[in-house]
Amino acid sequence: MRVILPAGTTETALIDGISAAGAAPELMEHTPSADVEILAYGKPTAAPVTPVSPNGCPTPAAVTRAVREEVGFDVTVVDAGLTRSTAAPTVDLDVSPGADVREETAVPDAAAIFDRAHGYGSELPDEELLIGETVPGGTTTALGVLTALGEPAGVSSSLPENPIERKRRVVDEGLAASGLDAGACDGDPLAAIEAVGDPVQPTVMGIAAGALESGTEVTLAGGTQMVAVAALLRHGGIDAPLSIATTSFVAAEQGDRLEAACDRLDCDLVVTDPGFDERDHVAMARYCAGEAKEGVAMGGALSLVPDGRMAAVRDRLETVCARLGIEADGPAEESAATTGDPAEAAAEDDRGS
Amino acid sequence: MRVILPAGTTETALIDGISAAGAAPELMEHTPSADVEILAYGKPTAAPVTPVSPNGCPTPAAVTRAVREEVGFDVTVVDAGLTRSTAAPTVDLDVSPGADVREETAVPDAAAIFDRAHGYGSELPDEELLIGETVPGGTTTALGVLTALGEPAGVSSSLPENPIERKRRVVDEGLAASGLDAGACDGDPLAAIEAVGDPVQPTVMGIAAGALESGTEVTLAGGTQMVAVAALLRHGGIDAPLSIATTSFVAAEQGDRLEAACDRLDCDLVVTDPGFDERDHVAMARYCAGEAKEGVAMGGALSLVPDGRMAAVRDRLETVCARLGIEADGPAEESAATTGDPAEAAAEDDRGS
Repeated sequence: MRVILPAGTTETALIDGISAAGAAPELMEHTPSADVEILAYGKPTAAPVTPVSPNGCPTPAAVTRAVREEVGFDVTVVDAGLTRSTAAPTVDLDVSPGADVREETAVPDAAAIFDRAHGYGSELPDEELLIGETVPGGTTTALGVLTALGEPAGVSSSLPENPIERKRRVVDEGLAASGLDAGACDGDPLAAIEAVGDPVQPTVMGIAAGALESGTEVTLAGGTQMVAVAALLRHGGIDAPLSIATTSFVAAEQGDRLEAACDRLDCDLVVTDPGFDERDHVAMARYCAGEAKEGVAMGGALSLVPDGRMAAVRDRLETVCARLGIEADGPAEESAATTGDPAEAAAEDDRGS
Repeated sequence: MRVILPAGTTETALIDGISAAGAAPELMEHTPSADVEILAYGKPTAAPVTPVSPNGCPTPAAVTRAVREEVGFDVTVVDAGLTRSTAAPTVDLDVSPGADVREETAVPDAAAIFDRAHGYGSELPDEELLIGETVPGGTTTALGVLTALGEPAGVSSSLPENPIERKRRVVDEGLAASGLDAGACDGDPLAAIEAVGDPVQPTVMGIAAGALESGTEVTLAGGTQMVAVAALLRHGGIDAPLSIATTSFVAAEQGDRLEAACDRLDCDLVVTDPGFDERDHVAMARYCAGEAKEGVAMGGALSLVPDGRMAAVRDRLETVCARLGIEADGPAEESAATTGDPAEAAAEDDRGS
């Protein structure tokens, strides 16, 4: 099993109030680069941030890494518009960071990115792929393309209280700046991405489309952002079988909407509960409280854990957390210093769920 | 266990008579890119060549991949001056392809490459690293730096008949063009690389030095090219314990010289015989006949195979070979067509051994 992880950035994440990232945008730009280093090496190596909130909630990359250490799978990171360099190995598909969706064009070369990603995906010899993502601001751009496609649009958040109304206002501004009404891109997914999407979307979509067309089974690993990718694929006329694998945390927040969306898009839905409520550890407690929820292929990775081995994954997660400066009863002081202030923690909103 | 694979190119490989690559230099430039795709995906995906000689000898990448499929280890490819793009994920250390050693300067930024590679290696959290290489022309540049350092200089070849005298003439020309006598770079390894080396050397050397300084165990995976890197490290004042892991094919060709070199450089030597003589398969027969011998971390990968599992590795190698178009009794016609004429096969000389 190979896990493909397109990682990128969009200036949409810098919008005030969307992710509160205005307070520390330079640090947030490093988050996907740090995530992929955690996947590749077990902790950030070159990235100057450790994506852990001050109250001890680690990036979902920590969970994906824990599963990888327990179960073992190949991870292939695709540079889907990283702003900052990373020491992790990445596939280069010549993708640039995305612009603010409130600009006239958010991803000017969406079609070209799709084509290159399609070529890459179609050549992979794997029988099965799991495709995830890491892109701060990604739920806002997911809301953007769902709205542009005319799909019922609800998206998740990595904070317990979802700033969904703010996201809707940003998307409305973005559509207006592109001269589009909601639903204007029905049947034209690349136009939706170009107007109000992010560069990770055509990368995931292209790899998935190419792989599906060459007979590879594809699971989209994520929550509402992957619902958006599934919608993009369906609007692009791709009708091959497709699965979405996400976490129980996203499923709990979304309620019936998630299953309804998957039904409408003819996607199988796999929800995995990692049993974090069985541990007395701050990282797992934060997930149970609704923080982070999903991202960096977390739900897909958890779906690979064989019966009876989830406790071992939780053990591994404790080890990974210790490497990231999180002990069972909270983040070490040094770690809190590394990861900054609450404004930065809030910057962790709107990613990966 | 992590296997790090710096992959690069040098125009030295294009010298007439060194590797006979003049007949098909454009194809040979793709060889390291294809090698790392084989490591990452099991076969070339984007690279337009399959590195298999017309008589059915596959690149050592096939063997390393076979071991990986059987034993399982992380592979991290570092772009150490690739000329052609690859679909494999690579770590970007901003390394450019090397110039012909007969130019005044072969690797103008050897010191800067070393520094970046050192930083990368020192941050890796692994306890043990195996570091290999893939660079066509690499035994000539190995001879180059050994000569410049004043070390007894013998290098291997990927052909049964080693064109060592040609390589010596090229190195002599290269030293003259740089205004250096043999031994002039004693104690100054980066000057040796700058004058007559290749960009993979400061990358391997830097990663090894950084990792050793942070307490990681390092094994150099390769034959005489890794003897050259060990010499570079020792001349650079790095006296930490160091191992070289290579194949029985290099050891057989080099005789006592290999062990003597390791003794002189205070390196442990591990030689692994993959038992290819026990199979009736053209790929394994070609290795037994002295073709290819080593490269792409083959000897290091073989050293990871636990007792009793080498037969399974040979089984896997047959599977990998089938993917590359090599059946037990020889290359498929299609494969021969893909990989071109005997001139191109000869282009496979002087790499990885």
